[in-house]
Amino acid sequence: MNLSKTHNLRSDGSRLWSTIVETAAFGGTPAGGINRLTLSPEDGHVRDWFRDACAAAGLTVTVDALGTQYALRPGRDMSRKPIAFGSHLDTQPTGGKFDGVLGVLAGLEVIRSLNDAGIETEAPLLVVNWTNEEGSRFAPAMMASAAYAGDFTTDDILAKRDAAGITVADALDAIGYRGSEPVGAQAIGAFVELHIEQGPVLEAEGKTIGVVEGGQGIMWFDGVITGFESHAGTTPMPRRRDALLALSEFALAAETIALAHAPSAVATIGEAAILAPSRNVVPGRVAFTLDVRDPRATTLDAMESALRDAAADISGRRRLEIALTRIWRKEPVPFDPAIVAAIDAAAESLGHSRRRIISGAGHDACNLAAKVPAAMIFVPCKDGISHNESESATQADCAAGADVLLQTVLRLANAPAPTEA
Amino acid sequence: MNLSKTHNLRSDGSRLWSTIVETAAFGGTPAGGINRLTLSPEDGHVRDWFRDACAAAGLTVTVDALGTQYALRPGRDMSRKPIAFGSHLDTQPTGGKFDGVLGVLAGLEVIRSLNDAGIETEAPLLVVNWTNEEGSRFAPAMMASAAYAGDFTTDDILAKRDAAGITVADALDAIGYRGSEPVGAQAIGAFVELHIEQGPVLEAEGKTIGVVEGGQGIMWFDGVITGFESHAGTTPMPRRRDALLALSEFALAAETIALAHAPSAVATIGEAAILAPSRNVVPGRVAFTLDVRDPRATTLDAMESALRDAAADISGRRRLEIALTRIWRKEPVPFDPAIVAAIDAAAESLGHSRRRIISGAGHDACNLAAKVPAAMIFVPCKDGISHNESESATQADCAAGADVLLQTVLRLANAPAPTEA
Repeated sequence: MNLSKTHNLRSDGSRLWSTIVETAAFGGTPAGGINRLTLSPEDGHVRDWFRDACAAAGLTVTVDALGTQYALRPGRDMSRKPIAFGSHLDTQPTGGKFDGVLGVLAGLEVIRSLNDAGIETEAPLLVVNWTNEEGSRFAPAMMASAAYAGDFTTDDILAKRDAAGITVADALDAIGYRGSEPVGAQAIGAFVELHIEQGPVLEAEGKTIGVVEGGQGIMWFDGVITGFESHAGTTPMPRRRDALLALSEFALAAETIALAHAPSAVATIGEAAILAPSRNVVPGRVAFTLDVRDPRATTLDAMESALRDAAADISGRRRLEIALTRIWRKEPVPFDPAIVAAIDAAAESLGHSRRRIISGAGHDACNLAAKVPAAMIFVPCKDGISHNESESATQADCAAGADVLLQTVLRLANAPAPTEA
Repeated sequence: MNLSKTHNLRSDGSRLWSTIVETAAFGGTPAGGINRLTLSPEDGHVRDWFRDACAAAGLTVTVDALGTQYALRPGRDMSRKPIAFGSHLDTQPTGGKFDGVLGVLAGLEVIRSLNDAGIETEAPLLVVNWTNEEGSRFAPAMMASAAYAGDFTTDDILAKRDAAGITVADALDAIGYRGSEPVGAQAIGAFVELHIEQGPVLEAEGKTIGVVEGGQGIMWFDGVITGFESHAGTTPMPRRRDALLALSEFALAAETIALAHAPSAVATIGEAAILAPSRNVVPGRVAFTLDVRDPRATTLDAMESALRDAAADISGRRRLEIALTRIWRKEPVPFDPAIVAAIDAAAESLGHSRRRIISGAGHDACNLAAKVPAAMIFVPCKDGISHNESESATQADCAAGADVLLQTVLRLANAPAPTEA
């Protein structure tokens, strides 16, 4: 360990920014975004660029059977599992230049900065580019990290088809990225993912670094409210069984229930449609969706119970039926406390303003957390906007995130080797 | 006057019912409803039937330039303007057997009953079948009565086109119902329209007769709520500008405002659509419609003011914009107090349970009221359902309505001649 040499080490923010600009040309859109669907020719080009850049930085690049790229830098103690970091290089069809990209390119920058400073780490380092985080072309999203964690078999994933009927297997072959390494075989001792927040909290609070403690649990519900369609002119108010008014009460109840579990809980009715809507007809039937999230499973339980109570109360008072079906529940993902603490310490040592935060969106690190110690670093993005060509982050924030990643990686790689379970 | 002979006179409910069943065959549907769009071949057939039945009852049938049929029965004093009654024989494309039809056929039944009893009235009587009340084929609805009242010129209406581009003029010619009488030339001293309620009030309260005091005023609004679309997972509740939650508050405020003007006022959001809805996106924009009705113009004013206050309050608290545009206002139509009193007295003399009521829907009588003294009689319809093939009314209620119409007509036609204004 050479702490005197490393504790003030920073990445080269200007070099990082230039790689963001350079790789944004692969699938770059006139509006300044990126259209780089997973396993597309553009994805192939950026993968080639990444492979070559890693090789030039002295890394050994391997590819697994689902196309995930692993770029290894040896450590002093090769018996230790590598400290891994990265994210994904694929984008939404109208994606931005930072979602995923920042985490991979900051990983490369960490390696380059260590090389420049001539620093060797105890544990090996591993930069990773996970295949298909976005899920825009092939469902599910985050499929390579899920397969790595054992949620799917490789064959399951290889057989998934896009809208044109092309399988993952064929798409991998088409760009030459169907690797030979078995999925899950690559050893990983810990995983750290730097990412833009994709939310408004850091920007609003003027914080540079989000120390991510975990990923939220998610519940998805489908709802149908069945009242009675009637004439808007001839049906007195007390006689109505108005499905839209019932939805209105339920939507406000869901908001109140989320606020009762502030600040973490959220509830969203994102879709709501009146059956056969007409200006002068009292709505008889409304279908809607409900998305509920919180980092604690017990809170999810309490919220579902409160939501069902609210539905029962409203349906009773308004003499209609509210059917609420939970179609999906994903348990909360707690990140590894030691890595979270390392990120926090790294941010503090660098003097960056920071806050603990929960990831509202899904990430590869959330999948990885089931198999290896993992955590994430967030940096602000403008107006919280993501999955949009206008997605934006500042060079200074990207550099700060890369610095925190670098210092976190050094702390993890140079810490005493963990006792294997 | 021969009050001793008339005050107990009733119509023949069985004969009335048989005409309802017989004419329901013109455009009859397998589901038991009627598809008899105005000026269609089926409308031509029922017009022919009505003309022949009136002629057989000794009436003189004329047709005006917009196809409205007038069937005149002489009175003892031919200097008096006729007491008119009727409704319309056209239906919605999936209409029922009673909406409009009852008023015309009960008019015929009134004549037949008077003939059977050998009763002559002081004023002449006039049964009317107004062209295109429904408005399903040609807009606007109730166009012939509106033209009679002077709201449109005959040429304006003749030039209206249906979805296939056919003009009213051509459609009238096609079934031979473009009459020679100028629209508005037919003298009418008073107009009484028997109709199913098209609402649930009479049935719910167990009343047989609705003594209709007027037609509601109507305001139509278009609304757009503009908040901010954001990620359902990463946007904390307090930072959201959720257009659907704003709509929810506004919908409940509209309900509260209508209830504050109970029992007459109603407010309905019949259409509401989220722009680009997605399960995991906070709704950024919602468009909606608002229908507000009350029989008093001052109440409409107060409701609009309260609705705008509510919108301002919600948009301020939730940091979004609510644009509320009034696209139409129809003033309330008060019916003639003397005719309303005559209907009430007729219902009382016949021993029918009754209540004063306001028409929530538009009717030819509402147009007529601007030019001649007018009022309406309602009878219950099952579950308040109308404009539907399942529309239903009992034979007993139809007969009761015809009896009240008969007795009302006798009172009006045999009353001392009104002083001309």
